[in-house]
Amino acid sequence: MNIDAELNEIVEAVRSAGEIILGAKRTAEMVDEKSGKANFVTTYDKLVQETLNRKLLEIMPEAVFVGEEEDIHASIEKGYAFIVDPIDGTTNFIKDYHASSVSVGMTKDGEQFFGCVYNPYLNEMFTAKKGEGAFLNGKPIHVSSNPLSEGVVLFGTSPYYPELTDATFDMTKKLFKAALDIRRSGSAAIDLCNIAAGRAELFFEMVLSPWDFAAGSLIITEAGGKVTRMDGSQITLEKPCSVLATNSVATLL
Amino acid sequence: MNIDAELNEIVEAVRSAGEIILGAKRTAEMVDEKSGKANFVTTYDKLVQETLNRKLLEIMPEAVFVGEEEDIHASIEKGYAFIVDPIDGTTNFIKDYHASSVSVGMTKDGEQFFGCVYNPYLNEMFTAKKGEGAFLNGKPIHVSSNPLSEGVVLFGTSPYYPELTDATFDMTKKLFKAALDIRRSGSAAIDLCNIAAGRAELFFEMVLSPWDFAAGSLIITEAGGKVTRMDGSQITLEKPCSVLATNSVATLL
Repeated sequence: MNIDAELNEIVEAVRSAGEIILGAKRTAEMVDEKSGKANFVTTYDKLVQETLNRKLLEIMPEAVFVGEEEDIHASIEKGYAFIVDPIDGTTNFIKDYHASSVSVGMTKDGEQFFGCVYNPYLNEMFTAKKGEGAFLNGKPIHVSSNPLSEGVVLFGTSPYYPELTDATFDMTKKLFKAALDIRRSGSAAIDLCNIAAGRAELFFEMVLSPWDFAAGSLIITEAGGKVTRMDGSQITLEKPCSVLATNSVATLL
Repeated sequence: MNIDAELNEIVEAVRSAGEIILGAKRTAEMVDEKSGKANFVTTYDKLVQETLNRKLLEIMPEAVFVGEEEDIHASIEKGYAFIVDPIDGTTNFIKDYHASSVSVGMTKDGEQFFGCVYNPYLNEMFTAKKGEGAFLNGKPIHVSSNPLSEGVVLFGTSPYYPELTDATFDMTKKLFKAALDIRRSGSAAIDLCNIAAGRAELFFEMVLSPWDFAAGSLIITEAGGKVTRMDGSQITLEKPCSVLATNSVATLL
């Protein structure tokens, strides 16, 4: 099987998913609340997930599909699996804040194999295949070599976990004092890709779900960066965990 | 004099300034440090300012020009004055973080008269003329009607003023708890325009310079929002001050 042909088709499916996001008609009725603060789902999250579910399994019928919406979960231990966030940055999408992305990670026998993040607002398609480097719109990208003191820190606020607010803000303030500045985009997948592209030096969020980082974390490591949990241990693709992503030079204080 | 023809020419000058930003070749040599943390200037800030200085004064030879770079200052009390930030979001520009803008405010006898902010990455041109509403790429925009509890808060970190760090983070954490989430883009002019476009509800920064908000603040008020200093008093166009910008509904706690 020529997997590269399938990967190209996957990228095109992700690009058309991004076009659904760009063409969305915003209404109050499109939004539902899930459990927890600012944990929204829209009719478009569901539509994009259904579309990707159908298209990706047409391309690779042998794969399993794990998606953020509608509780589709499956074991990723054997064979190929897709781990999908149809709209990463849902609050941004609802607000039309122009910072959301489609994130499709792919594992093979439980290991990261391919990742693809598309930001339709900037028309930026980030891709990485294990062992073959990371790319933005087909051009190789690499992390920066700046230390934290010359770095920009991207942070996630884990809005669904209010018990983490104090710790998140303490850490962010410490990093702000040590780095040039901080940024908060509201899309973890975009943040991870910005580290990969050398546009920022360190990202952290105290809890993220696998669909948030399954693609972006491979894109970073293939771009020369490093992704672990905040305690330095390996990230988990089966359950939520903390995420610390760097250019391999910048470190937590 | 038909001022609207001049304003259209100003908008086109700002658009070409944005194209200089998009076409920039990033090198280590392009960056100089000014006084204070993360206070950079690049050869492109200077080039864009020189270009705008020349073009804007060709369009309106009777106006004075106040710009961020090279200490060009002039009294804005009488007649027309341009208040210009050639690249708002210079750290983002240096990092290629894709969130910078060109900001041109215009006063008449010391009062806000016209404002224009261009984000070349998203090809978004925000404009407002006093009393005539606010526009994004020619289409009317309006602030949202959401209270803070359903709002997104944008914040500036005043990186050049380390004595404000604790107060900034205390305020941001309080607002995070009361609102849906927070965002930090690194370009105050873009933040202000996002409030005007109804994409976020409240922006604050403890110190900003007039060129950061001369255009964006008019765009917000013309879109139905409200801009004051953080103590509720009027912003000043002659010297730095704090800025609180809202959709007229959300308030500081």
